Amino acid sequence: MKAIKVNLAKRSYRIIIGFGVIKNLGRYIRQLDLGTDAYIITNSLIKRRYAQNILRSLDKHKINSTFDIVADTERSKSLSICLCSIQNLARFDQKRRVFIVAFGGGVVGDLSGFIASIYKRGIPYIQIPTTLLACVDSSIGGKTGVDLKFGKNLVGSFYQPSLVLSELSFLKSLSLRQVRSGMAEVIKYAIIKDKKFFGYLEKNYKRILNLERAALEYVVNCCAKIKAKIIEQDEREEMGIRTILNFGHTLGHAIEAASAYQRYNHGEAIALGMILASRISRRIGLLKGIDLRRIENLITAVSLPVFIKGLSLEKILKAYYRDKKFIGEMNRFVLISDIGKIVIKQNLPLSRIKGSLAEIMTPQT
Amino acid sequence: MKAIKVNLAKRSYRIIIGFGVIKNLGRYIRQLDLGTDAYIITNSLIKRRYAQNILRSLDKHKINSTFDIVADTERSKSLSICLCSIQNLARFDQKRRVFIVAFGGGVVGDLSGFIASIYKRGIPYIQIPTTLLACVDSSIGGKTGVDLKFGKNLVGSFYQPSLVLSELSFLKSLSLRQVRSGMAEVIKYAIIKDKKFFGYLEKNYKRILNLERAALEYVVNCCAKIKAKIIEQDEREEMGIRTILNFGHTLGHAIEAASAYQRYNHGEAIALGMILASRISRRIGLLKGIDLRRIENLITAVSLPVFIKGLSLEKILKAYYRDKKFIGEMNRFVLISDIGKIVIKQNLPLSRIKGSLAEIMTPQT
Repeated sequence: MKAIKVNLAKRSYRIIIGFGVIKNLGRYIRQLDLGTDAYIITNSLIKRRYAQNILRSLDKHKINSTFDIVADTERSKSLSICLCSIQNLARFDQKRRVFIVAFGGGVVGDLSGFIASIYKRGIPYIQIPTTLLACVDSSIGGKTGVDLKFGKNLVGSFYQPSLVLSELSFLKSLSLRQVRSGMAEVIKYAIIKDKKFFGYLEKNYKRILNLERAALEYVVNCCAKIKAKIIEQDEREEMGIRTILNFGHTLGHAIEAASAYQRYNHGEAIALGMILASRISRRIGLLKGIDLRRIENLITAVSLPVFIKGLSLEKILKAYYRDKKFIGEMNRFVLISDIGKIVIKQNLPLSRIKGSLAEIMTPQT
Repeated sequence: MKAIKVNLAKRSYRIIIGFGVIKNLGRYIRQLDLGTDAYIITNSLIKRRYAQNILRSLDKHKINSTFDIVADTERSKSLSICLCSIQNLARFDQKRRVFIVAFGGGVVGDLSGFIASIYKRGIPYIQIPTTLLACVDSSIGGKTGVDLKFGKNLVGSFYQPSLVLSELSFLKSLSLRQVRSGMAEVIKYAIIKDKKFFGYLEKNYKRILNLERAALEYVVNCCAKIKAKIIEQDEREEMGIRTILNFGHTLGHAIEAASAYQRYNHGEAIALGMILASRISRRIGLLKGIDLRRIENLITAVSLPVFIKGLSLEKILKAYYRDKKFIGEMNRFVLISDIGKIVIKQNLPLSRIKGSLAEIMTPQT
């Protein structure tokens, strides 16, 4: 078991990572005095597989609970689903002291955190991530949000959980594609902050894809530590520090949006975004060719995409321009000068972006 | 013109109060660097009467704008109206740098502040209150919210405005009933914090009801100062200090809800709530009879209700129990031991509440 503290004064919390940590859920809730009634937001698969693990621990500590099942797709991150869940929550809450448990992947986490942030002007919530991506990234840091048709996460808040409980045994039901998707964020942490960790991933990626215990615990712990440090310095993305977490995300989001969240899942789109950010970095002379190759090789090794298929350059650029990161006439890119070294560049010429995109486009099928 | 600073570190802002202050709106927006595009949420009456005052100042400083008209009823404080407005806002926001202007009374302010708090995880907003109630109370302090059918303000946030601009000439279009409603909150400030101010109100209430310039400016300034001080000490209602602003609100809200927001407007319900809180204070020996009479006399003098009509005791108690302030089995009342002196009492026997309610009930019509 590993425990990481996210230091944010009154909003501090712990990230507990390991196999079997879920059995302490009820005890943690009591220690933190979060409430007496758990409103658990999850999807039907997770509920079927793992609800018992949660209920056993809650029952032991006499904590009431109810489940709110949402579909496991990006479409669940909508204001109308949110409205529906909040009304159910208010019904459940009559004369109780309720808190929320986000029990699932990124979709469930983002939606649940947002609901917790606005119900009664904020009630406590716990993240219990069940995907690798959520364990290393979305469950930490308090970015919550739902989508509008105009863009992803256009509605949301910064609202920290009271606890993140990463029960790694829950990851065994993930498909290989889902594990790979999580690996994209893992690789991101290595690229933005830790060259040694990148070296570890080059040697051990197979063990992680196979969900080997020691490797998995090590990797989730490394990523969570890096993210916690960044959040502590720039909780609300106001200081230009948290921005580095967007490495690969600017064009990644555009690719995800251009494919209408169908062809590429989040991790795959981020892998492509990281390839692009690295190629742009190389193109403007920031990054050495050998480092670009190491990045491309690792992404290839874990079977994440390095070429864009079935999307036109125009469609991606259109989605990119719509992206909320495009403010006024200015663009801002998170690039690298080395593995582990970030450089923020503003007003990158469109030709650079287009050129790098064109390099990795394959003819449309 | 009066200016009050609300000191909240990075979230500090000014409250500007006076006649003719609206002509500086554009300049303030530029000084605060809030954005280039104003999304103005208002109601149709206010737009028709006063839009020109706003647009003149915005145009002068080359600030774009658009209007979002919502109905001027409590029903506008809903998640579905919110969803609709946010989509319009996102449409307007393409490639712009948008901020929100809450231009209206409490309903518009609460809704607009909430939208500002969740759009893109928070964008700036300005309060331009157009009712006495909003000038002295709801525009200050960053409590935003919308209602669920289960209760008022069940969904919301703490999110401070960047500026409050109280243009007192806007109040001249208020009905006398609306001015009286605002007076209820004015009297509240005097009761909870300032016996001298209470004395001023006893002498000058007619001048305020007539909206005389000097009296109005003095009163709005006094109330805003009291509220600012309280907010500075307890921004998120965590320290038990902000709670004193709820004087008269616990039963006031129940009366408002029991009348389905029809018979009594907010101020009238709060007046009744203050009568009840004062009577309970007298009943348990906290408050002297002479002070209770002074409170009842002032409320009577401004023609706010002191007796409850057309509602049953059962209905009010039912609404009270549903109220979100009722947590678990514990109730909490803001009472007084003197005009200007608050006492918080927990676990007040139901008989005290019922007894005081029964005293001011009149037979149902």
